[in-house]
Amino acid sequence: MVVWLLSVLPGAAAADPLPSWNDGPAKAAIIEFVDAVTAEGGADHVPPEQRIAVFDNDGTLWAEQPMYVQLAFALDRVEKLAPEHPEWKDTQPFKAVLENDREALAASGMEGAVQILMASHAGMTSDDFSKIVTDWLATARHPRFDRPYTELVYKPMLEILVYLRSNGFKTFIVSGGGIEFMRPWAEAVYGIPPEHVVGSSIKTAFEVRDGKPVIVRLPEVDFIDDKAGKPVGIHKFIGRRPIAAFGNSDGDLQMLQWTTAGDGRRLGAIIHHDDANREYAYDRDSHVGRLDKALDQAPDAGWVVVSMESDWNAVFPAQ
Amino acid sequence: MVVWLLSVLPGAAAADPLPSWNDGPAKAAIIEFVDAVTAEGGADHVPPEQRIAVFDNDGTLWAEQPMYVQLAFALDRVEKLAPEHPEWKDTQPFKAVLENDREALAASGMEGAVQILMASHAGMTSDDFSKIVTDWLATARHPRFDRPYTELVYKPMLEILVYLRSNGFKTFIVSGGGIEFMRPWAEAVYGIPPEHVVGSSIKTAFEVRDGKPVIVRLPEVDFIDDKAGKPVGIHKFIGRRPIAAFGNSDGDLQMLQWTTAGDGRRLGAIIHHDDANREYAYDRDSHVGRLDKALDQAPDAGWVVVSMESDWNAVFPAQ
Repeated sequence: MVVWLLSVLPGAAAADPLPSWNDGPAKAAIIEFVDAVTAEGGADHVPPEQRIAVFDNDGTLWAEQPMYVQLAFALDRVEKLAPEHPEWKDTQPFKAVLENDREALAASGMEGAVQILMASHAGMTSDDFSKIVTDWLATARHPRFDRPYTELVYKPMLEILVYLRSNGFKTFIVSGGGIEFMRPWAEAVYGIPPEHVVGSSIKTAFEVRDGKPVIVRLPEVDFIDDKAGKPVGIHKFIGRRPIAAFGNSDGDLQMLQWTTAGDGRRLGAIIHHDDANREYAYDRDSHVGRLDKALDQAPDAGWVVVSMESDWNAVFPAQ
Repeated sequence: MVVWLLSVLPGAAAADPLPSWNDGPAKAAIIEFVDAVTAEGGADHVPPEQRIAVFDNDGTLWAEQPMYVQLAFALDRVEKLAPEHPEWKDTQPFKAVLENDREALAASGMEGAVQILMASHAGMTSDDFSKIVTDWLATARHPRFDRPYTELVYKPMLEILVYLRSNGFKTFIVSGGGIEFMRPWAEAVYGIPPEHVVGSSIKTAFEVRDGKPVIVRLPEVDFIDDKAGKPVGIHKFIGRRPIAAFGNSDGDLQMLQWTTAGDGRRLGAIIHHDDANREYAYDRDSHVGRLDKALDQAPDAGWVVVSMESDWNAVFPAQ
């Protein structure tokens, strides 16, 4: 995975820091923003310690269709654990998962989702969970692209991450996804260390087991880092308002509002999935990653709307 | 405040990185640890991204006697807000605060403490709270030393922070104190940015007021970053086990355990307040910053016990 990061580094050092971006208003706006906030003595200069950029993950840094990667993980995990839970054969929502019954699964609603989440994500130590995630990602494949999920990250966004960091920015993930689902691989794939990953979480507890301290994952929701929860998560974990935010759905609306309502130069950007050939095309009517209100507000708010189809000359890193 | 940071920088660059530390086993153990984990190709080498050091705040980085600074802030705040709350004159625990009745205040217990906390810390926006804290610290004085609280930070610990950072460490505060009480000044005083401050918190919410997004502080406890909560806070906010931890009380016991139980070289250190002349002398029987179990476990665990009296040739920065 590290190879991809290295492969975009020369681009950052050369004349064009964003080689996977076609020339156009989106690319121009991003570069103009970075130039403005980094120009020493300029009217829009921002000191390096305040150069905080936040990124949604699902649909902004990696693919989220046809289902969130973490949901694919949870469903696979339920199948794997099923032999230890014979009662699941006759209990919803597990029965639906095991029978691949999408309709019954959908009918189980939020309550069913939480049950699947807790069965697949809680009960083990944090170290064990990290290993479970890492092992799963090493073998799981995307149903359409037949590649590991960690290869279905957006090359143009990897370039943005490197470009911003090389200009003194700190880059944070602020995702509705699970914080402990992302931390095991975000550093290798995105160059984003664990302490720069903000996400949803379940509660944990400290215990000493057989003389060895462990962190145990409990079956109770702690924090949902989505929608209005995103500015709350930013405030809680980062404690400073970002000057740049990248998202792709209405789950990012409040993060974009919070970021760009601050004083001075700000950048808000929305990745618009309009490329059915190379990835997926979806927005206002999608159940996954719905983009509706944020798209409506973008023009007045001055947010950059990035067309995957026309602004990006590559979507995924080369295999 | 920045002046003190600068005043310790030359020390870090010169031969002795810790000039306020007397030669002795504590200083030697700290330097030996840093040399070991930073030696390229050495058996104990730790990559820079894993060089996480965590510091308790109250009693470890600044004075906590005769009462926690944040408690002094809360009591002053209640007095300041009293004219807007005439009912407080006849309602505990506020009556006790306004009449300086320590006994009645103590009798109000945890419930009273939470009421005072919420009355003084909740209800405003996060931006307003930050300003309230900053304004208070600018004028409040320590009852014994008659100096601003931000000048009652430990010079030897400022040197440790600079020394570790100059050796590639990231330095985090992990405090039972309020995260939003520390963030407004931690960067200027300690060189620790907001995103490296972990602490206790109340819940917050995102709102749009008159078209302007704000974070509002709610009267509800979110997280207590103390005792077994400290490893949980470290895991939640940092997501990586530290290799060095500095504390001074039993509130830091689990943080020390969690840090030093990891693989490879680890450093655990306890600041022992045994200097009644220059600061305070307290440990096993103190209500503030009680140090009992951690002191018992230190020898077997290999934790360095730092004597303020004999290991430090200076306590506070020069005025």
